[in-house]
Amino acid sequence: MRKWTAVGLLFGMSVSVGAAPPRARPSLRDEVRAYRAAHEVEIVRELADLLSIPNVASDTPNIARNADRIVALLKQRGFAARLLDGQGGPPPVYGELRATGARRTVVVYAHYDGQPVDPTQWTGDPWNPVLRDKPVEAGGREVPLAGALEPEWRLYARGASDDKAPIVGLLAAVDALRAVKTPLSVNLKVFFEGEEEAGSPHLESVLRANAELLRADLWLLCDGPVHQSRKMQLYFGARGVTGVDLTVYGPLRALHSGHYGNWAPNPAVVLAHLIAGLRDADGRIHVAGFSDDARALTDAERDALASVPDVDADLRRALGLAQTEAGGARLVERILLPALNVRGLASGHVGDKAANAIPTEASASIDFRLVPDQTPTRVRELFEAHLAREGFHVVHEAPDAATRQVHSRIVKLVWGPGYPGARTALDLPISLAVRRVVSEALGTSVVSMPTLGGSIPMHLFQDVLNSPVIGVPIANHDNNQHAANENLRLQNLWDGIDLYAGILARLGAALPR
Amino acid sequence: MRKWTAVGLLFGMSVSVGAAPPRARPSLRDEVRAYRAAHEVEIVRELADLLSIPNVASDTPNIARNADRIVALLKQRGFAARLLDGQGGPPPVYGELRATGARRTVVVYAHYDGQPVDPTQWTGDPWNPVLRDKPVEAGGREVPLAGALEPEWRLYARGASDDKAPIVGLLAAVDALRAVKTPLSVNLKVFFEGEEEAGSPHLESVLRANAELLRADLWLLCDGPVHQSRKMQLYFGARGVTGVDLTVYGPLRALHSGHYGNWAPNPAVVLAHLIAGLRDADGRIHVAGFSDDARALTDAERDALASVPDVDADLRRALGLAQTEAGGARLVERILLPALNVRGLASGHVGDKAANAIPTEASASIDFRLVPDQTPTRVRELFEAHLAREGFHVVHEAPDAATRQVHSRIVKLVWGPGYPGARTALDLPISLAVRRVVSEALGTSVVSMPTLGGSIPMHLFQDVLNSPVIGVPIANHDNNQHAANENLRLQNLWDGIDLYAGILARLGAALPR
Repeated sequence: MRKWTAVGLLFGMSVSVGAAPPRARPSLRDEVRAYRAAHEVEIVRELADLLSIPNVASDTPNIARNADRIVALLKQRGFAARLLDGQGGPPPVYGELRATGARRTVVVYAHYDGQPVDPTQWTGDPWNPVLRDKPVEAGGREVPLAGALEPEWRLYARGASDDKAPIVGLLAAVDALRAVKTPLSVNLKVFFEGEEEAGSPHLESVLRANAELLRADLWLLCDGPVHQSRKMQLYFGARGVTGVDLTVYGPLRALHSGHYGNWAPNPAVVLAHLIAGLRDADGRIHVAGFSDDARALTDAERDALASVPDVDADLRRALGLAQTEAGGARLVERILLPALNVRGLASGHVGDKAANAIPTEASASIDFRLVPDQTPTRVRELFEAHLAREGFHVVHEAPDAATRQVHSRIVKLVWGPGYPGARTALDLPISLAVRRVVSEALGTSVVSMPTLGGSIPMHLFQDVLNSPVIGVPIANHDNNQHAANENLRLQNLWDGIDLYAGILARLGAALPR
Repeated sequence: MRKWTAVGLLFGMSVSVGAAPPRARPSLRDEVRAYRAAHEVEIVRELADLLSIPNVASDTPNIARNADRIVALLKQRGFAARLLDGQGGPPPVYGELRATGARRTVVVYAHYDGQPVDPTQWTGDPWNPVLRDKPVEAGGREVPLAGALEPEWRLYARGASDDKAPIVGLLAAVDALRAVKTPLSVNLKVFFEGEEEAGSPHLESVLRANAELLRADLWLLCDGPVHQSRKMQLYFGARGVTGVDLTVYGPLRALHSGHYGNWAPNPAVVLAHLIAGLRDADGRIHVAGFSDDARALTDAERDALASVPDVDADLRRALGLAQTEAGGARLVERILLPALNVRGLASGHVGDKAANAIPTEASASIDFRLVPDQTPTRVRELFEAHLAREGFHVVHEAPDAATRQVHSRIVKLVWGPGYPGARTALDLPISLAVRRVVSEALGTSVVSMPTLGGSIPMHLFQDVLNSPVIGVPIANHDNNQHAANENLRLQNLWDGIDLYAGILARLGAALPR
C-alpha cells in the first residue's frame, strides 16, 4: 500500500482550479485511462483487500473493520476522514477533499455493507475474493491477480459490485487526477453507509444529525448496476422498499399426515392460498388500493424511456425465460410500477428430508418495491387490510395457544424497515449538466433512466437535505447482485474510474453559475 | 441382557398346548400384569437399547445392526430366527415359534426402520433414548430408567412408538406367558420390515419370494397408534400412500428483486398458485377425478364408525386448532376419504436470511393418502393431467436451459413409491374372534376402526398372500409420530404386552374350527 497522506494533502491544497490544460495535452479521458492501465493490479488488489472483510450489516465487529479500513484509505489520499455516529447503526464513513476556489460541493454516496450470504450456494468463500477469466456459470476459472488483466475478467466476492467497487473506483479516480495534475472542479465529500442492505434504518437520523456537514449542491449515488446493454447509465430515481415476514399456523405439533391429513388444517396450503391471493403469476397485485398512490410520469421521463435500449429479448435468453410477467411488457416500464416479490417460502421439508407430516407452521418472506408517492406506512395498512378481508387475524408476535384456539386463520407479520421511492426531475439544470459531463468523460452516450428498479434511500437526500440526487452506477448488470457468486466485471471498474474522474474534474465548470 | 437361549428353546418345545389352567389360578391378565410389573425396567431397557441404533431405511450399516440385534433378541426367546433376502432393500427379520398341536398360524408384522429426522428440531439426540416424566412440550424432565416407573412417563427416541415398541412388547408377552406357564395357542411367526417408512418398495417382492414361508391364517399388523381416547383399537384397513416432489422454475440465476421484480417470473408465486389450484384450505381436492375410485362403505363399517368415541373437540384443544377442515367434519369420517397433504415448501429464504432476490426455483413435497380402490398409478395420471390442464409442461428430470427457453411454465415431478389402501371386512369370523379375544385380554371394550388414517401396505398381505389382515397398534396417539420428539407412553407398552399375551394364549381356541 502506498503512503499517500502527504502527497494527497498537497494535491488537495495546491492545485489551481479551472486552469485550462495546454492544447497539446492528450484528452483527460486518455490520461486517466493511461494512468489506470499502468495501475490495474494495484487498484484491483486494493478492492480485493477491502472485500476480504466480511460486511453483513449485523456483523458489528467486521463492519467496524470495514469502516476503519475505508477511513485509512481516504486518509492516504489526503481526505479529512472520520467515522460519524451511526445513531444506533453501523458508523457511516465521512471524508472531504476541498478544492481551492471551487464554488460547488458534491457528495458521493456508496455503502460498504453487503447482502447476507448463503455460503452453501457460493462456488467459493464469499469473503475470499477470487478473479476468474469468465463468469462462474460459464465455467470461469481462477486467474492470478498479476500481469495483464483482461477487461472481461471478473472479481468474485460479496460486495464486489454492490457496493465496494465505487468506493475503490472513486479513490482510483482521485489518484489518477493527481497523477495527471488535473485539479478537482468541485469540493468532494464522501458518505459511505454501513447498513444499506439492512434497509438503512438509521440513515435518516444520521442525515438529520449531520445536515450542515452534508449540505451539498448535488448528491451522487454510486450504487446499482449499469444498463443491461452494458452502456453506462444515470438514474434519476429509485424505487422504495419495505419487506415483511409472514407466518401462518397449523397444529401445535407436527402431525402424522395419514392419521390427521384432511382433518387438521395444513399451514403450507393456507400460505399458498394467501400468496396466490396477493398477486397472480403474471405480476398483477390484488391488494386493493396498492397502486393508487403511484405518481404519473412527466413528458421528459416518457422521452427518456423511449430512448432506453431494448434489451428484453437478450435478457430473457440469458436468464432462460420463455416469458416475462405482464404479457411481456418492457422491463423499463415495469420498474416504474410497484412490485410485490416473494423472496422465500419455508414449511416442513422437501426432497429427501420430507416426512409424511402436517407442518406446524408455514412462512413466506416478501419485499415490496414502492414508487413515488407510495409510502411504507400506507403499504402496510393496505396489506394488513387485505389479509383481514381474506379472513386472517393479523398479529405481530407469535400467538399463544389460547389465541390459536380462538382464531382459525392467524397470520403473524414481522415488518422490516422501509422507505419510499424518489425521482429527481430529468430536466433540472444540474441534471442536464451531469448528463453532459458524463457523456464527455466516457466518450459515448449514456442511458438516462427515470428510475432504477432497485432501492436506494434517495428520498432522504431530497427530503432531509433538500438536495438533488442522481445515480451514477458502475457495476455490471449481470453481477449476481444480492445472490451467490456476486462479481464485478473489470471493464466496469475501468469505466467507473473514467466516469468519476470526469465528474470531479469537469462538473464545476459545467454547472450554471 | 439375560441368557434366554436355552430357556426359550425349552419353553418353545416343552409346554403342552391347550391345557386348562387350574380354577384357583388368577386370570391370565392378572398374571401377565404381575410379571410385567416385576420386569418393567428390563423391558424398557431392552427397548431403549434397540432404539439407540439409528434406523433410517437408507442408512444401510445401521439398518443391518438393527436387523442383527432383533434376530438375536428372537433367538434368546427360542425363535428360529433369521434375515430374509431384502430383494434389494433392507433385510426383513423372520422368526417362528411353533406351538405343539396348534392348528392355526398367526404372523405378527412390525417394522424396525423409522422416519428420517431433522436433529435441529429434537430436544435431544433422536437415537439417544431418554425417559421423561411428562411430554417434553409440557416441560417433561429426564428421569432415570430405574426403580418404579410411572405409567405416564414417556420414552423419547426415533422409533420409540413407530415401530419398535411392538417388537419389544411382543417379546415381553412371550416372556410373560413362559413365566406364567401358559402355552401359545397359535403357531407364531414374526416378520419385521426395514423400509416401511421409505414406502416399502421391496415388500411385494419379498412376500412373493417367501409366500409359502409366510402363509398364515391371519396377519396382525402391529403398527400405528391407539385411539385418541386412549382406548386400544383394532383397525381393519389402512389408507394407501404415494408422494411427489415438485419443482417449478424462475430465472437461471437469482435476480435482484428491485431491478427485475415484476418483470422476471417468480417461481415461489407460481408454486403458490399451483398448490392453491390443487386443493382449497378446507381440504377439497380440485384434481379432476381424484376421488372417483373411492369404494363405498359397508353397513358393518358404518355401524362401527358410529360407535367410535368422539374425540374431535379434545383433539382440537390439544392441538391448538380453532377449526378443522371440511367445516369441522369428524376425523373418523375424514380418514375414509383420500387426502392431499403438503408436507413441505422451499424457495429462497425467509427470516434473517431472506435476501431481496427472485429465487431460481421453488419446490413442494406432497403426500397422497389413498383409499380402496384408488391406485398410485391412477393418482399419478390424474395429477399430471391436472397440471397439464393448468398449463404446466410436466418433466421428470431437471429441464435444461433450452427447455426453459421454450416452456414458460415447467414443473418437474419426482414420484416416490406408493401402494393402494386396503380394508378387511369387519364381519368375517376371524375378525369377530380377534375383537373378542382382545377385549378379554384388556378387560375392556376396544374401538373397531374400519380404517386407519395412516398407511401400511395391508393390501399386499391380502393380495399376495391371500390372508386377512387386522391391525393391533399399541402406541399412544400423541407420540409425535413422523416428527421430532417421537415418544412412547409407558402405559401403552404395558397395554400392548397384555394384548399380545392374550392373543397368543387365547386366539387358537377362539377361532372357528
